[in-house]
Amino acid sequence: MDIRVDIIGYAAACFTTFSLLPQIIRIRRLKEAKDVSPLMPLMVAAGSLLWIVYGFLITSPPVIASNAVALVIAIVTTVFALKYR
Amino acid sequence: MDIRVDIIGYAAACFTTFSLLPQIIRIRRLKEAKDVSPLMPLMVAAGSLLWIVYGFLITSPPVIASNAVALVIAIVTTVFALKYR
Repeated sequence: MDIRVDIIGYAAACFTTFSLLPQIIRIRRLKEAKDVSPLMPLMVAAGSLLWIVYGFLITSPPVIASNAVALVIAIVTTVFALKYR
Repeated sequence: MDIRVDIIGYAAACFTTFSLLPQIIRIRRLKEAKDVSPLMPLMVAAGSLLWIVYGFLITSPPVIASNAVALVIAIVTTVFALKYR
Protein backbone atom coordinates (compact mmCIF):
# COMPACT_ATOMS: atom_id res chain seq x y z
CA MET A 1 0.00 0.00 0.00
CA ASP A 2 1.26 3.44 -1.01
CA ILE A 3 2.18 5.49 2.08
CA ARG A 4 0.40 8.52 0.56
CA VAL A 5 -2.82 6.52 0.63
CA ASP A 6 -2.28 5.78 4.33
CA ILE A 7 -1.66 9.48 5.01
CA ILE A 8 -5.03 10.37 3.42
CA GLY A 9 -6.70 7.73 5.61
CA TYR A 10 -5.08 9.07 8.78
CA ALA A 11 -5.97 12.67 7.85
CA ALA A 12 -9.59 11.57 7.32
CA ALA A 13 -9.57 9.81 10.70
CA CYS A 14 -8.20 12.95 12.42
CA PHE A 15 -10.95 15.18 11.03
CA THR A 16 -13.79 12.83 11.98
CA THR A 17 -12.28 11.86 15.36
CA PHE A 18 -11.73 15.45 16.53
CA SER A 19 -14.82 17.01 14.89
CA LEU A 20 -16.61 17.44 18.25
CA LEU A 21 -13.75 19.44 19.82
CA PRO A 22 -14.91 22.82 18.36
CA GLN A 23 -18.36 22.08 19.82
CA ILE A 24 -16.92 21.43 23.30
CA ILE A 25 -14.90 24.67 23.08
CA ARG A 26 -17.99 26.65 22.01
CA ILE A 27 -20.16 25.31 24.85
CA ARG A 28 -17.39 26.08 27.36
CA ARG A 29 -17.05 29.60 26.02
CA LEU A 30 -20.77 30.44 25.80
CA LYS A 31 -21.72 28.36 28.89
CA GLU A 32 -24.83 27.47 26.92
CA ALA A 33 -25.83 24.52 24.78
CA LYS A 34 -29.59 24.69 24.39
CA ASP A 35 -29.33 24.63 20.57
CA VAL A 36 -27.08 21.55 20.73
CA SER A 37 -28.82 18.17 20.47
CA PRO A 38 -27.47 15.85 23.22
CA LEU A 39 -28.55 12.94 20.98
CA MET A 40 -25.88 13.94 18.46
CA PRO A 41 -22.77 13.25 20.65
CA LEU A 42 -24.65 10.32 22.26
CA MET A 43 -25.00 8.69 18.82
CA VAL A 44 -21.29 9.31 18.17
CA ALA A 45 -20.50 7.68 21.54
CA ALA A 46 -22.70 4.64 20.77
CA GLY A 47 -21.15 4.36 17.30
CA SER A 48 -17.59 4.67 18.64
CA LEU A 49 -18.29 2.00 21.27
CA LEU A 50 -19.55 -0.37 18.55
CA TRP A 51 -16.51 0.48 16.39
CA ILE A 52 -14.25 -0.45 19.35
CA VAL A 53 -16.05 -3.81 19.72
CA TYR A 54 -15.72 -4.31 15.95
CA GLY A 55 -12.03 -3.34 16.12
CA PHE A 56 -11.39 -6.03 18.76
CA LEU A 57 -13.34 -8.64 16.74
CA ILE A 58 -11.32 -7.97 13.57
CA THR A 59 -8.12 -7.26 15.59
CA SER A 60 -7.56 -3.74 14.22
CA PRO A 61 -5.55 -1.52 16.60
CA PRO A 62 -6.13 1.66 14.48
CA VAL A 63 -9.92 1.18 14.64
CA ILE A 64 -9.76 0.56 18.41
CA ALA A 65 -7.40 3.47 19.16
CA SER A 66 -9.08 6.16 17.03
CA ASN A 67 -12.53 5.24 18.32
CA ALA A 68 -11.35 5.17 21.92
CA VAL A 69 -10.33 8.83 21.47
CA ALA A 70 -13.61 9.61 19.69
CA LEU A 71 -15.57 7.92 22.50
CA VAL A 72 -13.96 10.09 25.21
CA ILE A 73 -14.59 13.28 23.18
CA ALA A 74 -18.20 12.25 22.53
CA ILE A 75 -18.85 11.52 26.23
CA VAL A 76 -17.41 14.91 27.25
CA THR A 77 -19.59 16.63 24.60
CA THR A 78 -22.69 14.77 25.84
CA VAL A 79 -21.99 15.80 29.46
CA PHE A 80 -21.46 19.44 28.39
CA ALA A 81 -24.59 19.44 26.21
CA LEU A 82 -26.69 18.15 29.12
CA LYS A 83 -25.04 20.38 31.75
CA TYR A 84 -25.60 23.62 29.81
CA ARG A 85 -28.89 22.74 28.13
CA MET B 1 -15.69 -13.46 8.60
CA ASP B 2 -18.56 -14.10 10.99
CA ILE B 3 -21.71 -12.33 9.79
CA ARG B 4 -22.39 -11.13 13.36
CA VAL B 5 -19.09 -9.24 13.25
CA ASP B 6 -20.21 -7.54 10.02
CA ILE B 7 -23.53 -6.59 11.61
CA ILE B 8 -21.70 -4.87 14.50
CA GLY B 9 -19.61 -2.96 11.95
CA TYR B 10 -22.67 -1.84 10.00
CA ALA B 11 -24.48 -0.83 13.21
CA ALA B 12 -21.42 1.23 14.21
CA ALA B 13 -21.38 2.86 10.75
CA CYS B 14 -25.10 3.75 11.02
CA PHE B 15 -24.67 5.49 14.38
CA THR B 16 -21.68 7.56 13.30
CA THR B 17 -23.05 8.30 9.79
CA PHE B 18 -26.43 9.55 11.02
CA SER B 19 -25.23 11.23 14.25
CA LEU B 20 -25.75 14.75 12.86
CA LEU B 21 -29.43 14.14 11.97
CA PRO B 22 -30.73 14.97 15.51
CA GLN B 23 -28.76 18.24 15.30
CA ILE B 24 -30.38 19.17 11.96
CA ILE B 25 -33.82 18.39 13.40
CA ARG B 26 -33.14 20.51 16.49
CA ILE B 27 -31.96 23.54 14.49
CA ARG B 28 -35.02 23.25 12.22
CA ARG B 29 -37.33 23.09 15.24
CA LEU B 30 -35.73 25.92 17.27
CA LYS B 31 -34.81 27.99 14.20
CA GLU B 32 -31.65 28.83 16.12
CA ALA B 33 -28.12 27.46 16.13
CA LYS B 34 -25.98 30.04 17.89
CA ASP B 35 -24.67 27.44 20.39
CA VAL B 36 -23.74 25.10 17.52
CA SER B 37 -20.17 25.34 16.24
CA PRO B 38 -20.23 25.44 12.38
CA LEU B 39 -16.65 24.09 12.51
CA MET B 40 -17.99 20.81 13.90
CA PRO B 41 -20.04 19.71 10.82
CA LEU B 42 -17.40 21.34 8.58
CA MET B 43 -14.75 19.02 10.05
CA VAL B 44 -17.07 16.05 9.55
CA ALA B 45 -17.54 17.14 5.91
CA ALA B 46 -13.78 17.48 5.35
CA GLY B 47 -13.18 14.11 7.01
CA SER B 48 -15.93 12.40 4.97
CA LEU B 49 -14.50 13.86 1.75
CA LEU B 50 -11.05 12.48 2.62
CA TRP B 51 -12.62 9.10 3.54
CA ILE B 52 -14.29 9.04 0.09
CA VAL B 53 -10.93 9.72 -1.60
CA TYR B 54 -9.36 7.00 0.58
CA GLY B 55 -12.24 4.63 -0.30
CA PHE B 56 -11.58 5.12 -4.01
CA LEU B 57 -7.82 4.61 -3.53
CA ILE B 58 -8.30 1.32 -1.66
CA THR B 59 -11.39 0.41 -3.78
CA SER B 60 -13.79 0.07 -0.84
CA PRO B 61 -17.45 0.62 -1.85
CA PRO B 62 -18.68 0.56 1.82
CA VAL B 63 -16.24 3.34 2.79
CA ILE B 64 -17.24 5.40 -0.26
CA ALA B 65 -21.01 4.89 0.16
CA SER B 66 -21.27 5.51 3.92
CA ASN B 67 -19.10 8.62 3.73
CA ALA B 68 -21.03 9.98 0.75
CA VAL B 69 -24.14 9.89 2.96
CA ALA B 70 -22.21 11.41 5.89
CA LEU B 71 -20.87 14.16 3.60
CA VAL B 72 -24.37 15.22 2.49
CA ILE B 73 -25.63 15.26 6.11
CA ALA B 74 -22.57 17.25 7.24
CA ILE B 75 -23.01 19.84 4.46
CA VAL B 76 -26.71 20.29 5.34
CA THR B 77 -25.77 20.69 9.04
CA THR B 78 -23.10 23.27 8.17
CA VAL B 79 -25.56 25.29 6.05
CA PHE B 80 -28.18 25.18 8.86
CA ALA B 81 -25.60 26.11 11.52
CA LEU B 82 -24.51 29.14 9.46
CA LYS B 83 -28.07 30.16 8.44
CA TYR B 84 -29.43 30.18 12.01
CA ARG B 85 -26.29 31.34 13.82
